[in-house]
Amino acid sequence: MEWTGDTADVDGVVERGFLLDVAGRRVPGALWTPSGAEGARPLVLVGHGASHHKRIGYVDTLARALVRGHGFAAAAIDGAGHGDRRPSPGDDEMTIFSEFLGEWSRDGSTDEAVADWAATLDAVRSLPEVGDGPVGYWGLSMGTIYGVPLAAAEPRIQVAVFGLMGLVGPTRDRLGADARVVTCPLLFIQQWDDSLIPRDSTFELFDALGSVDKRLHATPGEHAAVPAEEFVFSARFLARHLAPGGDELTS
Amino acid sequence: MEWTGDTADVDGVVERGFLLDVAGRRVPGALWTPSGAEGARPLVLVGHGASHHKRIGYVDTLARALVRGHGFAAAAIDGAGHGDRRPSPGDDEMTIFSEFLGEWSRDGSTDEAVADWAATLDAVRSLPEVGDGPVGYWGLSMGTIYGVPLAAAEPRIQVAVFGLMGLVGPTRDRLGADARVVTCPLLFIQQWDDSLIPRDSTFELFDALGSVDKRLHATPGEHAAVPAEEFVFSARFLARHLAPGGDELTS
Repeated sequence: MEWTGDTADVDGVVERGFLLDVAGRRVPGALWTPSGAEGARPLVLVGHGASHHKRIGYVDTLARALVRGHGFAAAAIDGAGHGDRRPSPGDDEMTIFSEFLGEWSRDGSTDEAVADWAATLDAVRSLPEVGDGPVGYWGLSMGTIYGVPLAAAEPRIQVAVFGLMGLVGPTRDRLGADARVVTCPLLFIQQWDDSLIPRDSTFELFDALGSVDKRLHATPGEHAAVPAEEFVFSARFLARHLAPGGDELTS
Repeated sequence: MEWTGDTADVDGVVERGFLLDVAGRRVPGALWTPSGAEGARPLVLVGHGASHHKRIGYVDTLARALVRGHGFAAAAIDGAGHGDRRPSPGDDEMTIFSEFLGEWSRDGSTDEAVADWAATLDAVRSLPEVGDGPVGYWGLSMGTIYGVPLAAAEPRIQVAVFGLMGLVGPTRDRLGADARVVTCPLLFIQQWDDSLIPRDSTFELFDALGSVDKRLHATPGEHAAVPAEEFVFSARFLARHLAPGGDELTS
């Protein structure tokens, strides 16, 4: 694990860029921790969507909310062909999205993404200010395409937020099989008028997920229109499972 | 409005029974307010489900959470053929439920329930410790059968929680027509494996509701298995709309 030197300490949150070598792949990541943090704490891995990157607005906002509101650590990495893993910067989102459809079809795409995240877990948890606390995962759309297989493969993940995905696309069968193996508590976020992901395919994925403790939250609107309310709920949901206590009706 | 004299003041919550005469119908209710409350405050009407009554566990718990956690007032009334409106006490829930199916089919059932709630609003808001603050409604199952028409007819209701219902049953057409007129922010609670209410009919009702600001929360399990989490969220959702402020991701 190599620090890339881009560090910021703002409003109680330290953000640091890092670089991992995973079987020859250079994987750039970002880590958010409380200023002056010492000792083990819960960690949330945040997976971005297709055409986005490890520091896009909603990833950064969620990471900072988890750090500031709960004292957690948060980590994000660029997916293959995204962010600092693109050969040329400055491509528009449609270009990156089109290339992702090819990546999604590539044999090894899912296995490599899972390996990238597992290496990130190993590296980040070796830091004393993160340590071996409980781990959560948050990722919608592409973040679910790779997040479900990650949660299926990775017993360290104890709670997850998925969504904006169904049993569709080139990895549909793999996604369904891995979903059945997932048993951690989870929140599934759906956009009710999502024109990319048919409603019934979303229900198929939600049904396939093996967790007994799961809930589906649907909001009217298109794929990318997830409301702030679901990010607020996500943070509370992750916090409730990673640092229990204090979320009772009678409080 | 006549007080029935059954009053309790426990843990900062005053609960009082009352009786209204609504076009010759005797309508028994309960009102929860903060101990020593003075002046206007938000009010939540809580509608119980079929075979239940105005003081059943979840109604009482939600009412007390709104009073203690937010300083609101809450009111509940017995539906026709329920609670203190039954000719003989002690009938079992199946008997009461069966009779409700007849009541649901009776002409005037919906209009009378709406009138009972409107009279409750008038009476309760005339009290100085409740006053003319904003009003919310919470009611699942039978509480939605009558709550949707109430919200359609009653401009004082500014936020609502519905659920455990679909476009089914003898008032299906009325329910659909009234749903289209509802425009307030709302939460819709669904039980994913509800054997009483077909999943698709639930989606039809959710789609019919005219509100732009709406969300559907689905949890695996049967009709009556709504988890505590949805009551916690209900209280927060009502509070956010009736007493805005303080529910931001960055907090």
